[in-house]
Amino acid sequence: MDGRTGLPLVGMVGGGQLARMTHQAAISLGQSLRVLSVSADDSAALVAADVRIGSHTDLTALREFAGGCDAVTFDHEHVPGDHIRALEKDGIKVYPSADALIFAQDKGRMRERLSELGAPVPRWRRVRELADITGFGLPAVAKATTGGYDGRGVWMLQDEAQAQELIATGTSLIVEERVPLRRELAALVARSPFGQVAAYPIVETVQQDGICVEVIAPAPGLPEQRALEAQQLAIDLATALGVVGLLAVELFETDDDLMVNELAMRPHNSGHWTIEGARTSQFEQHLRAVLDYPMGATTLTAPVVVMANVLGGPPGGISIDERVHHLFAEDPGARVHLYGKQVRPGRKIGHVTVLGDDLAEVRARAARAAKRLQEGI
Amino acid sequence: MDGRTGLPLVGMVGGGQLARMTHQAAISLGQSLRVLSVSADDSAALVAADVRIGSHTDLTALREFAGGCDAVTFDHEHVPGDHIRALEKDGIKVYPSADALIFAQDKGRMRERLSELGAPVPRWRRVRELADITGFGLPAVAKATTGGYDGRGVWMLQDEAQAQELIATGTSLIVEERVPLRRELAALVARSPFGQVAAYPIVETVQQDGICVEVIAPAPGLPEQRALEAQQLAIDLATALGVVGLLAVELFETDDDLMVNELAMRPHNSGHWTIEGARTSQFEQHLRAVLDYPMGATTLTAPVVVMANVLGGPPGGISIDERVHHLFAEDPGARVHLYGKQVRPGRKIGHVTVLGDDLAEVRARAARAAKRLQEGI
Repeated sequence: MDGRTGLPLVGMVGGGQLARMTHQAAISLGQSLRVLSVSADDSAALVAADVRIGSHTDLTALREFAGGCDAVTFDHEHVPGDHIRALEKDGIKVYPSADALIFAQDKGRMRERLSELGAPVPRWRRVRELADITGFGLPAVAKATTGGYDGRGVWMLQDEAQAQELIATGTSLIVEERVPLRRELAALVARSPFGQVAAYPIVETVQQDGICVEVIAPAPGLPEQRALEAQQLAIDLATALGVVGLLAVELFETDDDLMVNELAMRPHNSGHWTIEGARTSQFEQHLRAVLDYPMGATTLTAPVVVMANVLGGPPGGISIDERVHHLFAEDPGARVHLYGKQVRPGRKIGHVTVLGDDLAEVRARAARAAKRLQEGI
Repeated sequence: MDGRTGLPLVGMVGGGQLARMTHQAAISLGQSLRVLSVSADDSAALVAADVRIGSHTDLTALREFAGGCDAVTFDHEHVPGDHIRALEKDGIKVYPSADALIFAQDKGRMRERLSELGAPVPRWRRVRELADITGFGLPAVAKATTGGYDGRGVWMLQDEAQAQELIATGTSLIVEERVPLRRELAALVARSPFGQVAAYPIVETVQQDGICVEVIAPAPGLPEQRALEAQQLAIDLATALGVVGLLAVELFETDDDLMVNELAMRPHNSGHWTIEGARTSQFEQHLRAVLDYPMGATTLTAPVVVMANVLGGPPGGISIDERVHHLFAEDPGARVHLYGKQVRPGRKIGHVTVLGDDLAEVRARAARAAKRLQEGI
């Protein structure tokens, strides 16, 4: 409890944009997020009042940070499980727990557990030597079990030579069939320690070069039955894995099935649209979940909501401030979110959200707005 | 410009809830509000990263605070005009300017200027001696020219003895007719240095004991023609007074007329509903205005939006955290905003917003939610 306000104190490990937007949500709840940030220039460190500088791999720093927090949670998956267990042993409420988070940290463990649970997953296998890949069959998708993000840690293997080369790097791998997917979807749910689960509408996520560039809510043309199945799958997984906080389930939609691609247990890029597009944003929902508050309404606030990521564009051109100026002149209804990050080509520096009635128009506006910020033209 | 982000730096004088919610809006724009706060425990100081502790009446503190800001603006009206002029002379962009702000600081100057402009105001007179009141006619409303807020600084004078007593306090006063009002309305506009003005839908404000308890957007049953008149009046006043930033015009609605009650040149309680209820919140709009960005869309996001203030209730009872818990269980769609303030009876400690289609239902939910937080029952 924060003695000054009588309201809870949540600590988030990691100072990226997810912590930044969680702090923004915390303000409404009368709270002020405590952030453990590697650098004072990190996204969240630039805007939060209670910032501790330190590494998420330093148990001493984690312990000092966690002291006095009603709950500790994460902006990313990189905190070692042993450190989380040490905090849990200290009596800190850490959500998700080490036992749950492992399934978002390790794709091998995730695939094993999901297979045990009978959840739909692509055909897969752990890789210990070349024969595990050749025996599985090529072409195939290889994934690093840990540390992958935004297309990194994923390889499309066409032939044995490529497989050999990858194995030589010593990376811990799994191999999966390449799913003949129609598109990608995402299911987002939040679960509290009490066990209440709230599910958001299923969205479509559009990827380019392994990076999510666009999220459409609700997923266009998705039959209600399949949407309900996807929500139920995410609810069942959150419950079975003991997740507290948000669980994002990235899904492949094939012609007649859904398959789980990835899991994340934190606010997720596929849920940024909820800031304006749902009655309760994913960031507030995550706070409510880790504090065991009852969940907020997940209803859409408009028939169509589209979020487009803003990636760092090529160097040069007009300043980011001028780009904002032009965008605001061009589309007074576009909602802009900038993360305070240095621009590097391809780096996520913000997102825009557009709401409306007509799918084609809303998508075009969101794409236009993102391009304006990204390329300045 | 903030060298780390390439985005503007706005400074707000005063650390109350308006600065708190403006910081929240600044985060989306890639910014971090700089706050000049009297105490480290003030609402905004609890959540902002860049807080300077100092008094708004200390010119040295104001100068240090303003250095490096792209624009300086206000959470309240209490900065002396001479200090603002000194900052302007230093080359700081201060919005609203001293020349505009005086009409929100001094009710005598406001009434004079509005009378000159031909704006509709109640019959009024400056008070220098008892005869100014008795000659004006009793009963009447006396107002302190400066420093009034939330019903303070306003007196209903029934007889000469009361008038005599008030004059004896030495307060600088004006006297006004008691307007036979049907209800109170508010018009909110934002104006940029370029001169662009954006007007929000006209709202009804409901007062109890001089304090606003409820705001209904749009004002129920207001004929379109009168709504347009009210918007135009606010636009004309913002332009004539040279306001940059927000201008809130509190209005009396009589059977056949509108009259200006008060002016405020900052985010205003009558505009808190815009956080969820309008495409662009008043807080973002104020930032856009003082930075000379193009204005954002002011369209409603739902047919009916009701904001209810949460006042500090009687001491005792369950904690504020438990109250939040119960409210969330009761109404998953209610939007809660708490200001991180110590509870004192009658003090504004937060607000709740409910959106929907049915006026009676939305009002009832908002009132219920505010009562839950206020009284714990």
